[in-house]
Amino acid sequence: MSVSGLTARALKKLQQTTHKTLNRSLDRHVKLAVTGFSGSGKTAFITALVKHLTTQATAQNLPFFEVVREQRLVACKQVPQSALDIPSFEYQNAVQHLLADPPSWPPSTQRINTLTLALKFRSTQGVRQHLSDTHTVYLELIDYPGEWLMDLPMLNQDFASWSEQQLKRLAQPDYAHISAPFLQQLAKFDATHAVDESALAALANSYADVLKQLKAQTRLARLQPGRMLIPGELEGAPILQFFPVSGLDAVPEQSQYHHLEQRFEAYKKQVITPFYREHFCRFDRQLVLVDLLSALNDGHTTLTETQSALSDTLAMFRHGKSGFLSRLFRPSIDKVLFAANKCDSVALADQDKLTRLLHTLLLPSENELKFSGVEIDTMAISSVKSTQPKQLTEQGKILSCIYGKPVGEPNYISYLPPIPPEHLPSAQQWPAQGYEFLSFEPYPAYQGQIEHIRLDHVLQFLLGDKLQ
Amino acid sequence: MSVSGLTARALKKLQQTTHKTLNRSLDRHVKLAVTGFSGSGKTAFITALVKHLTTQATAQNLPFFEVVREQRLVACKQVPQSALDIPSFEYQNAVQHLLADPPSWPPSTQRINTLTLALKFRSTQGVRQHLSDTHTVYLELIDYPGEWLMDLPMLNQDFASWSEQQLKRLAQPDYAHISAPFLQQLAKFDATHAVDESALAALANSYADVLKQLKAQTRLARLQPGRMLIPGELEGAPILQFFPVSGLDAVPEQSQYHHLEQRFEAYKKQVITPFYREHFCRFDRQLVLVDLLSALNDGHTTLTETQSALSDTLAMFRHGKSGFLSRLFRPSIDKVLFAANKCDSVALADQDKLTRLLHTLLLPSENELKFSGVEIDTMAISSVKSTQPKQLTEQGKILSCIYGKPVGEPNYISYLPPIPPEHLPSAQQWPAQGYEFLSFEPYPAYQGQIEHIRLDHVLQFLLGDKLQ
Repeated sequence: MSVSGLTARALKKLQQTTHKTLNRSLDRHVKLAVTGFSGSGKTAFITALVKHLTTQATAQNLPFFEVVREQRLVACKQVPQSALDIPSFEYQNAVQHLLADPPSWPPSTQRINTLTLALKFRSTQGVRQHLSDTHTVYLELIDYPGEWLMDLPMLNQDFASWSEQQLKRLAQPDYAHISAPFLQQLAKFDATHAVDESALAALANSYADVLKQLKAQTRLARLQPGRMLIPGELEGAPILQFFPVSGLDAVPEQSQYHHLEQRFEAYKKQVITPFYREHFCRFDRQLVLVDLLSALNDGHTTLTETQSALSDTLAMFRHGKSGFLSRLFRPSIDKVLFAANKCDSVALADQDKLTRLLHTLLLPSENELKFSGVEIDTMAISSVKSTQPKQLTEQGKILSCIYGKPVGEPNYISYLPPIPPEHLPSAQQWPAQGYEFLSFEPYPAYQGQIEHIRLDHVLQFLLGDKLQ
Repeated sequence: MSVSGLTARALKKLQQTTHKTLNRSLDRHVKLAVTGFSGSGKTAFITALVKHLTTQATAQNLPFFEVVREQRLVACKQVPQSALDIPSFEYQNAVQHLLADPPSWPPSTQRINTLTLALKFRSTQGVRQHLSDTHTVYLELIDYPGEWLMDLPMLNQDFASWSEQQLKRLAQPDYAHISAPFLQQLAKFDATHAVDESALAALANSYADVLKQLKAQTRLARLQPGRMLIPGELEGAPILQFFPVSGLDAVPEQSQYHHLEQRFEAYKKQVITPFYREHFCRFDRQLVLVDLLSALNDGHTTLTETQSALSDTLAMFRHGKSGFLSRLFRPSIDKVLFAANKCDSVALADQDKLTRLLHTLLLPSENELKFSGVEIDTMAISSVKSTQPKQLTEQGKILSCIYGKPVGEPNYISYLPPIPPEHLPSAQQWPAQGYEFLSFEPYPAYQGQIEHIRLDHVLQFLLGDKLQ
């Protein structure tokens, strides 16, 4: 072999190595967090996302997702997750539910879980395009309970101000019938007394009952402490056994008040802060699924509360950038999408109204967030289609109906859904008969293909810039 | 008021303050850990301990517990626990089971939990006696699963040596019928292959099934990783999805073997080490409850395995003092008691044989431990009596029977139990018919008083020196 031959080989090898190294450094990791409250469809959303990206990534199916429309997505597959101590999202099990005959919603999870996809794609521009044929983005999906997010504001409160806020909420006329047993017990409670563990436990249980009932009956979002609803391994631990009490002028040492205060602070330090530091701060993008239709079904108070909860949520992203949360550790979230899910429970023509309603609910807070460099958007979506639009004619009039199988019903029906409001109606404007949107089972998949509404918009907003 | 009056008051106050300060500094905290495997009676033991100390602490009831016999125990009551993030031991619920009519065993817990007692007592000697009338010892009881203890030896192993040990155990003829499905799957597994998550998950599930069946059918104690049996919030996390595989000469990067090795190391670092550091190291005294009778019922292999498990356990205390564990953090345990529980399932005259058998099983390891400054003892006890001795005469011969209600049976019976061996019999010496010791329900409490066997000896050994 000639010297020049050797040199040529060496050069080629060097080139390949450089190529490989550069390539690896160009690989990107994106952490996309998905949250929402039970019933908002987190599990179905992640399942649909994985299904579409891994087996249905065609331009016809995801036209608004640029990397797919431009046919630059080479392949997408599930790869091992890097966080070994987080439960894996059970995709196979979940997708079986959607593909079954008859299909059903996958069972919801009540804890954090994760799944990683590798997206191999061709770049459109710049350095990337010249250096390598393909690049890989590792998309880490993290699904966590909305209750954990709703705990974050507590980090900025002391026990007295938190108590005041909670007691005020419990006293609202709409919730009085639920909170009465707890408030009656609380009236007899002497917070200055020396600690009586069983009295504290009894009241904490009574408070937990209130939270559970509020969750089940009213879909209130701001139920604190959130871990009382999903305690996991903290079940029965004193750190979860606190409740709001009216403030004292002076707090005797070793009193029950002092003790509750200590538990409140321990909860902040040992439960909320670790979530904030180890998870929330490391998210790049956040999707918040909102179940607006259930809130409408529940009535004016719940919708108003939903607005407050959304406002609190937005504040978290803002505070992360410049407020009290940034003092702890600066989060990296730069895009937040709020999506009203299950939008095909309303007529096709009315889906925009849902988007507008969600936008109105967020409006008071949105501006502040824009100033802090977080991009937000709102959409009405259905990660998994549950109805088909159907036009019926009644007495010569065309009715925009939907066709689907209501949850718990044996048969498919054609249904004329109520029209959602575009703005938050006042209590006076609220229709006397209320709203009654139905929930539907997933629509049967055709040839193993799941349908969606605007999932491609979601993907483009949250990931488009990472796949250029 | 005269000046001297003021001075006298000031002096008295100073005296009181000094008294109080010294007193507080003399208060002692003792962490007593209780462990054992499911069925060894941890919950009943702690319940009985609390019941006897708080409501039955008479010289007649606890004659060998010096502080009680000498009438120096002023009072004992439950006080708030200091570790807020550990579930509380549910004493009230557990004791109700024992006091009910008919009584039953309290439901067992599968996780760590805790309860603190304050023991106020008069000292017998020295500085203590002169400074203060009474002192207080805070006794923190910590109940944790034996599986966690059995994981500690893994800290000194790498994945290859651990795998070898596990595979050897699974290949034992007695366990072959249980381990066969896993071993067959394993034979087809290519560890050098690139990672296939679902293949790893399938094999990990199959290995977990083996562990579960071994636990249910053989009472094997050394089932690693222990969290596979009680996963809690790690259910479904990759950190629990590993299994033993035969070693490779060279381990390709990104291979399945490499991946399993990473999970094994993550388990050591993120699961075992925190337990060791945050709990085990801080215990002062350790009680290990052993269910010898079930091991005897299961046969020679299980009893031999129990011996190995006990030997491993002892080694943990030794290693803590001078071996590999002490490199991490030095534990403070200085007394360990091994107690064969439920000793009243054998005849009164034979209970000593149980103690001797337990002693024999521990003997090979005990000496080493003595040199490392840890005091150990063995006893046969019943934390809650379940039978009464009864003498029956049959054909002129007096039979030492027991009288009780076997678990799951409707009636009380008089029963002539088998005689336990005093030493570990060889496989040849093992009785052809095997052993069949019965399990009994708790014996009904009389006037709210629970009976025990040698609980006072246990208390004296573990706590006597702290209450002098």
